[in-house]
Amino acid sequence: MIRIGIIGFGYWGPNLARNFSSLDGCQVRYIADVDPKKLAVARKLYPAVTATENAEAVINDKEIEAVVIASPVSTHYEFAKNALNNGKHVLIEKPMTRSAAEAEELIELAAKKHKVLMVDHTFLYTGAVKKIKEIISQDHIGEIRYFDSTRINLGLFQHDVNVIWDLAPHDISILKYLVEEPPQSVIASGVSHTDNRVENIAYITLNYKTNMIAHFTLSWTSPVKIRKTLIGGTKKMVVYDDLEPTEKVRVYDTGFKVSDSQKLLIDYRVGDIFIPKVEQTEALKGLAQDFLRSISKGSRPLSDGKSGLAVVRILEAAESSIKNGGKEVPLK
Amino acid sequence: MIRIGIIGFGYWGPNLARNFSSLDGCQVRYIADVDPKKLAVARKLYPAVTATENAEAVINDKEIEAVVIASPVSTHYEFAKNALNNGKHVLIEKPMTRSAAEAEELIELAAKKHKVLMVDHTFLYTGAVKKIKEIISQDHIGEIRYFDSTRINLGLFQHDVNVIWDLAPHDISILKYLVEEPPQSVIASGVSHTDNRVENIAYITLNYKTNMIAHFTLSWTSPVKIRKTLIGGTKKMVVYDDLEPTEKVRVYDTGFKVSDSQKLLIDYRVGDIFIPKVEQTEALKGLAQDFLRSISKGSRPLSDGKSGLAVVRILEAAESSIKNGGKEVPLK
Amino acid sequence: MIRIGIIGFGYWGPNLARNFSSLDGCQVRYIADVDPKKLAVARKLYPAVTATENAEAVINDKEIEAVVIASPVSTHYEFAKNALNNGKHVLIEKPMTRSAAEAEELIELAAKKHKVLMVDHTFLYTGAVKKIKEIISQDHIGEIRYFDSTRINLGLFQHDVNVIWDLAPHDISILKYLVEEPPQSVIASGVSHTDNRVENIAYITLNYKTNMIAHFTLSWTSPVKIRKTLIGGTKKMVVYDDLEPTEKVRVYDTGFKVSDSQKLLIDYRVGDIFIPKVEQTEALKGLAQDFLRSISKGSRPLSDGKSGLAVVRILEAAESSIKNGGKEVPLK
Amino acid sequence: MIRIGIIGFGYWGPNLARNFSSLDGCQVRYIADVDPKKLAVARKLYPAVTATENAEAVINDKEIEAVVIASPVSTHYEFAKNALNNGKHVLIEKPMTRSAAEAEELIELAAKKHKVLMVDHTFLYTGAVKKIKEIISQDHIGEIRYFDSTRINLGLFQHDVNVIWDLAPHDISILKYLVEEPPQSVIASGVSHTDNRVENIAYITLNYKTNMIAHFTLSWTSPVKIRKTLIGGTKKMVVYDDLEPTEKVRVYDTGFKVSDSQKLLIDYRVGDIFIPKVEQTEALKGLAQDFLRSISKGSRPLSDGKSGLAVVRILEAAESSIKNGGKEVPLK
Repeated sequence: MIRIGIIGFGYWGPNLARNFSSLDGCQVRYIADVDPKKLAVARKLYPAVTATENAEAVINDKEIEAVVIASPVSTHYEFAKNALNNGKHVLIEKPMTRSAAEAEELIELAAKKHKVLMVDHTFLYTGAVKKIKEIISQDHIGEIRYFDSTRINLGLFQHDVNVIWDLAPHDISILKYLVEEPPQSVIASGVSHTDNRVENIAYITLNYKTNMIAHFTLSWTSPVKIRKTLIGGTKKMVVYDDLEPTEKVRVYDTGFKVSDSQKLLIDYRVGDIFIPKVEQTEALKGLAQDFLRSISKGSRPLSDGKSGLAVVRILEAAESSIKNGGKEVPLK
Repeated sequence: MIRIGIIGFGYWGPNLARNFSSLDGCQVRYIADVDPKKLAVARKLYPAVTATENAEAVINDKEIEAVVIASPVSTHYEFAKNALNNGKHVLIEKPMTRSAAEAEELIELAAKKHKVLMVDHTFLYTGAVKKIKEIISQDHIGEIRYFDSTRINLGLFQHDVNVIWDLAPHDISILKYLVEEPPQSVIASGVSHTDNRVENIAYITLNYKTNMIAHFTLSWTSPVKIRKTLIGGTKKMVVYDDLEPTEKVRVYDTGFKVSDSQKLLIDYRVGDIFIPKVEQTEALKGLAQDFLRSISKGSRPLSDGKSGLAVVRILEAAESSIKNGGKEVPLK
Repeated sequence: MIRIGIIGFGYWGPNLARNFSSLDGCQVRYIADVDPKKLAVARKLYPAVTATENAEAVINDKEIEAVVIASPVSTHYEFAKNALNNGKHVLIEKPMTRSAAEAEELIELAAKKHKVLMVDHTFLYTGAVKKIKEIISQDHIGEIRYFDSTRINLGLFQHDVNVIWDLAPHDISILKYLVEEPPQSVIASGVSHTDNRVENIAYITLNYKTNMIAHFTLSWTSPVKIRKTLIGGTKKMVVYDDLEPTEKVRVYDTGFKVSDSQKLLIDYRVGDIFIPKVEQTEALKGLAQDFLRSISKGSRPLSDGKSGLAVVRILEAAESSIKNGGKEVPLK
Repeated sequence: MIRIGIIGFGYWGPNLARNFSSLDGCQVRYIADVDPKKLAVARKLYPAVTATENAEAVINDKEIEAVVIASPVSTHYEFAKNALNNGKHVLIEKPMTRSAAEAEELIELAAKKHKVLMVDHTFLYTGAVKKIKEIISQDHIGEIRYFDSTRINLGLFQHDVNVIWDLAPHDISILKYLVEEPPQSVIASGVSHTDNRVENIAYITLNYKTNMIAHFTLSWTSPVKIRKTLIGGTKKMVVYDDLEPTEKVRVYDTGFKVSDSQKLLIDYRVGDIFIPKVEQTEALKGLAQDFLRSISKGSRPLSDGKSGLAVVRILEAAESSIKNGGKEVPLK
């Protein structure tokens, strides 16, 4: 029975609490939040849990084996470091930290302490992304040549982080999961429509050594909600539309080939479309199970600290590019 | 009766020929193309027209008052210059020329010769774009703060120009028509999936002095066809989907407002949606009529040389940005 | 504080329990069900409520003022009669009863006992249906000339009632709410693809004295889910698509007019489309509030016994028509 | 070189003329129509063809081998009879005739004269319907248990025939092509919103000996255009949406099975969806080719007189059912 403390009960914390509460093999002991109103909600929903304003109390309780951090991004590093130093396993809400340096430090610390360090990249546990991964692994798609994602809607402006830090972790974590080749550099642009200069629209391009390209369109300011990703391979192409209730993944038997390289004749192929059934279980439940399994078996979670770091590196570079007028920022 | 010669009978020339043939007030006298097969088609469809491989014959015929140029982009400048020098009115297929310098020279020459110089930005004559212009003019949208356009599909790789020169003229001409503020700089990236290094995927960002931003997603390599533009104003937002058969324009009574600038509280507004009826007549017919009217009345066409130049300047800057790793290129 | 007992905790009962529990002004005292497993769930969710297998205990408890009946259709009449006889207010899940005679008896009994008798026609409380009612009331649609509804999906075959009794109450209650003119007769056909002769596909036509017509397509056997209603008026037409997340109601400025009755020339009008914003609150909450308000104020609920009877009359006639090879069955 | 005369140059005649003109192996010699304006159009498009107001001249010309009849329905029988009697092959626009008796007479006459008698059921030659036929033939669908078609839009009210005679031939010919089992009876209802009592909305149900059912929804009075057919088999289900530009046919690996017939437990299966590529060539061209091939090879066309008769029988029965208040009309 793994005893868990959850820090942060704002937007996402309640979903984490609900999932961990429903699983066998663990027990939610604490819910911490600075907002007494949120604690009141937590107490009503989970009378057996200790609801507290004091996050440090959670981290310092020797009974607690694992800490789930869903507080604001700026607090992730500090809470995670303290938790690891106190010998806790740690699951951090995305984005992992505010800088790659912080993420690297946490990874090192977790390794030293032999603790699980995991990041909540929920989409890696969705039926849709798992199905796309499966199709790519079976070499149906060929080499991936482009990844183009649009994640836009109206609302939920964040105060502390811009639209890149808020929305791009989803797409970047999916990209990193599906495409092995590492990007070489980042170019990004964006604009803020509020006085605080926090960008609410942004565009990111990732460049690769090969002729692979990735691009993200991100906005909190769209009248329509779109969550669509196009993935083009040398064999087939995939369209992933997360808003489709049942037809999230479409595999197009579509491609083109240079048939005469001198005359540059191109053969186009447009064939059948296949819509595989995808698993409908809640992604966050799968993620929570992976965390518990990694703790009890000592295995490596799919969405580990390294995955969190890779995302933060790109976020950091993208923000730097925006602040420097779209300058190309190399990725190490 | 304005006597017209058409140069180029490939992809778009037949549409120009069909429209000018159907109009009163003009007569198509010549169709020129280097490909004898295309001339054979032209002869069958228009037995009364002289079909010739010799474009210069068209330009030199004193009977001809106006020349329509739908040949490959690289030939536009030469044909147009000769035609203007021979005292013809000129309509050029988009993009106007291969460089801004060429476009500037043609504009100057047309002015000197008192001839109409027009560029075929067909979309400016569509019912949808005219309706959006009308809505903006009536100040329903407020100040436009973003313009985000996606124009992707499979196929029709061009050999001589990349996807930017092929597809972006549509979006840039619409942008320039709808938004008065001039962009200050261009950042673009792209990739080629063929050996000839001609980009088949490209992304362009236009930066402005204000917090306006424009972005274009362009691809010949998408399994799905999308032609969608989001236009966000301070009052309302518009979605223009050119693939919708009857519901091309949607006006969203949607917006956001900073209600407390210290706490950064944002009020969101999501209201009714309005889908205005748009005119269904063929855009190219309206463009042809504008050309004829400009000749006979001495008026200025909507899609004039200046409009063509503005588009070419951005294309040129975008290509330069791509070739320089996404470097920001200022626009004069 | 109105004390409530809920009978039936199967498919819909939990939704009723959740809504009544969340409302001020009432208290759920009992949840009854014949299935001990469902009672276990109820006990976990609502520790303060008495969960019992004995529905009669609920009906006989003098503390209970109102009984909510969500048990199988065949039990509705008996439970409701006993509850009314014991002086309780009654809310019955749709369809109200298995026959019009039963429904009439309950209405009479409720009147005699001065108790509220209400039927759960949830859709009357949705933002979409309320908005359509409003638009019709403001005379934007004109006289309604047709009502065509499709409600199909895969699954949830019922054992005791056919697809008409299961799905049509939704559409018929909406029809009766929006269209005042009473239908004169029913024609229905259907087919069963299981051995028990319970129809899983059915079609119903309602005939009117005027040239109004209503038609319902119902199926448990469709690979796609559709919940779409077309409502044609002499002025405008409405399409109501309940599966649209935010654009459920569309008003088409569309119509036709006989412009020359001798030559039968028809003028068609296709104009703008308007998508009004509709309220997003849970319909069942509004229904529960109407029940409580009707009890405390002695007012008449929108979805009253009469409304339930009108629906049952049509269901009964439709079933009779199916069993008689599509014979026209008059409605009184 | 088969010499052809076309009678009727209204809505559909021009399409027939265009297709037969483009085919090798035949020559369009005549176009006849009572309207001089339409003849003027024909003369402009086809200068080499004799355009005449005199249909009998076409039928009596000994040079003419085949007559294509696209005049109003009421004239089909007379023209076809005369043409067959004069030794011509005959292609008739749908619906074949105004009565089954007329259709039977023509079939008999064609057999006696050894001439091809064909009906223009264009949809049988579409890539989509051919693909569905192929899938059914390969036994992927199993036994077909329902066929539900919706064909509605705004406009084109006919004066001489109601919406059934205008639109249902498409759906009935497709049904008859795909489903071998003959329907046993027809029930139909409809309503007219014009003074001439010509129905503009109609619903048809076809009953079968087995638990197969077919249903058609037909309207000239819908604000939205729908052309959708659901076909349910014991193995899989097909949705055919003719308005989809490229994804007309979807095969759902969806079904249900009675797993326990006593308790009536039903197992549902929802699996992958497959969208086969369908041929994009113009259906009418394939039909014209079938006509020419049948003439030259003496083969039987797919859409023969028998097919036309089967459709007319159902139309006749449906109209009779409507006029008799939805009475069930047996089919012989």
